[in-house]
Amino acid sequence: MIEPIRWTDEGVVMIDQTRLPAEETYVTCRNYSEVAQAIRAMIVRGAPAIGVAAAMGVAIGVAQAAPADLDAQVARISAELRSTRPTAVNLFWAIDRMNRLYRTIRHLPWEEIRDRLIAEARLVREEDIEINNAIGRHGAPLVPDGKTVLTHCNAGALATAGYGTALGVVRAAVAAGKDIDVFADETRPFLQGARLTVWELQRDGIKATLITDNMAGHFLHSGRIGCVVVGADRIARNGDVANKIGTYQVAVLAKENGVPFYVAAPVSTLDLSLPDGERIPIEERGAAEVTHVFGVRVAPEGTAVRNPAFDITPSRYVTAIITERGVARAPFEESLRDLAGSPA
Amino acid sequence: MIEPIRWTDEGVVMIDQTRLPAEETYVTCRNYSEVAQAIRAMIVRGAPAIGVAAAMGVAIGVAQAAPADLDAQVARISAELRSTRPTAVNLFWAIDRMNRLYRTIRHLPWEEIRDRLIAEARLVREEDIEINNAIGRHGAPLVPDGKTVLTHCNAGALATAGYGTALGVVRAAVAAGKDIDVFADETRPFLQGARLTVWELQRDGIKATLITDNMAGHFLHSGRIGCVVVGADRIARNGDVANKIGTYQVAVLAKENGVPFYVAAPVSTLDLSLPDGERIPIEERGAAEVTHVFGVRVAPEGTAVRNPAFDITPSRYVTAIITERGVARAPFEESLRDLAGSPA
Repeated sequence: MIEPIRWTDEGVVMIDQTRLPAEETYVTCRNYSEVAQAIRAMIVRGAPAIGVAAAMGVAIGVAQAAPADLDAQVARISAELRSTRPTAVNLFWAIDRMNRLYRTIRHLPWEEIRDRLIAEARLVREEDIEINNAIGRHGAPLVPDGKTVLTHCNAGALATAGYGTALGVVRAAVAAGKDIDVFADETRPFLQGARLTVWELQRDGIKATLITDNMAGHFLHSGRIGCVVVGADRIARNGDVANKIGTYQVAVLAKENGVPFYVAAPVSTLDLSLPDGERIPIEERGAAEVTHVFGVRVAPEGTAVRNPAFDITPSRYVTAIITERGVARAPFEESLRDLAGSPA
Repeated sequence: MIEPIRWTDEGVVMIDQTRLPAEETYVTCRNYSEVAQAIRAMIVRGAPAIGVAAAMGVAIGVAQAAPADLDAQVARISAELRSTRPTAVNLFWAIDRMNRLYRTIRHLPWEEIRDRLIAEARLVREEDIEINNAIGRHGAPLVPDGKTVLTHCNAGALATAGYGTALGVVRAAVAAGKDIDVFADETRPFLQGARLTVWELQRDGIKATLITDNMAGHFLHSGRIGCVVVGADRIARNGDVANKIGTYQVAVLAKENGVPFYVAAPVSTLDLSLPDGERIPIEERGAAEVTHVFGVRVAPEGTAVRNPAFDITPSRYVTAIITERGVARAPFEESLRDLAGSPA
């Protein structure tokens, strides 16, 4: 089983997702600034995995803090971790969760605060694996048997603490005996599909076929795709979904061709404070991700680039949102509110 | 001005489109087999440019043939050139044109046959440049002023004998004083957009911004794209368009967002023998184009790949087809027949 992120006595250990699939190497972040830098550089990526990393970042920051003036230090640690990436709400959710706990235990001795925060960060990780198993259980019945699942980016074990959201649904469908295979969009510019999704499905013996992003429409039109399943970085109150750039066009093409489009994400990805997707901040990343591939230049010197890392899929293209608490369908304003309010 | 292909005493000289933009090198094909290999390896690519190359391939083949048994040699030369790539009809159109001429002059002395075929191949090239200028004149009025043109792949000077089809429309709109810029899809796997479209627009001082293929929908949704203009490899009687893989999804996303979708192509790209696009053969190319970028592996060993080089855009997504003889609109069956039958 792939362990993308875990707590050790030496620090927060992460599989380096920038090196896969060529090398399976692990990075140890020994303080909260190294955790923040790992999130920025996408050594760890995927909304749920970023949440786990941020929780562990708060814990390691407090573990190394001076016992005096802890309030200010927790605020500084949290602010640095919050500044790493803007779109995935799980980052803020995890930091808020750690801060809420801190406020209830701040009167305790420092050693106890430290131990409780470390335990909480480890719990965030363990819960995430359980959540993904539950997402898989809810999603597996939706996957048509004998067809292909199309996925975009990597919403797999590597994007989470383990098992995956979208790929958790695939794994659960395979475990349930369904005869399916996966088409993986390569997902430029960072190539999460080519590098990560194919890699982890190969390890599990699930048949995966790699396509470039511009082939998705062709295969959705061909009739072989039974459904699309993707992850999410943030879901607004009305069901609009922020996810990896390119998700929007896959959703439009799925609808145009009568193929169900499913989003698999934990309840922590819901941001009910936002009425719709237009308010979700979209990260714009550097030009070199587009002009270079693994350091090799693919465009002329001086090329102007746009590089939004995410896009918004309006909820009218979303067939259903699969969470650990059940499956939400339109009208999403109601169904998501009900799921958010229901017991975990 | 870019001269992608020309006839010289040494052979057929082509800019090596596999090396751009890193190196501007030229390849000299000294016999018809080298021309065929250059088409196969995409040293020359783009439907009109392939047509010019094939015409020159027939001419160089005859120029080097033994005067005896010329019929059989022309047949063999033509068969090898026909076998290079299946989708772009301009290849077959050019070979047919050379064969038609050959049949009317086959009774002449060999030297005269040779000179007439060489002259014809050079004429195909010169006509192509004139055709593209005419496409530009017809297309420029359709381009909204003050907005961005989105294009996919490279239907520019490099895809033709010069000036380009889709980029000919862009050049003509700029020459007409319109304030436009271009968004270029990078066009995986071969990266014609990143490598070729950006390169040739830079040389002309036309502002170009590179995006990955999965960003096209995001920007079509954003309101900044005034129209899409692409080329074509083959157009069926009903207006269905075969073009570079990914064109179909750009067309669907353009329609979904109310953005006009234009196809710019010479009349030689029409294949009125085919009732619709379903009958157009789609070339499937090797896996390494997807698993590697400039020789660098981007997916795990043993990755299964699909690599269709083209897709079919049903005519219901096509706003208009811009040819050298005018602009065809729905119903295309009528408008294309009228254009095909009208004087050049």
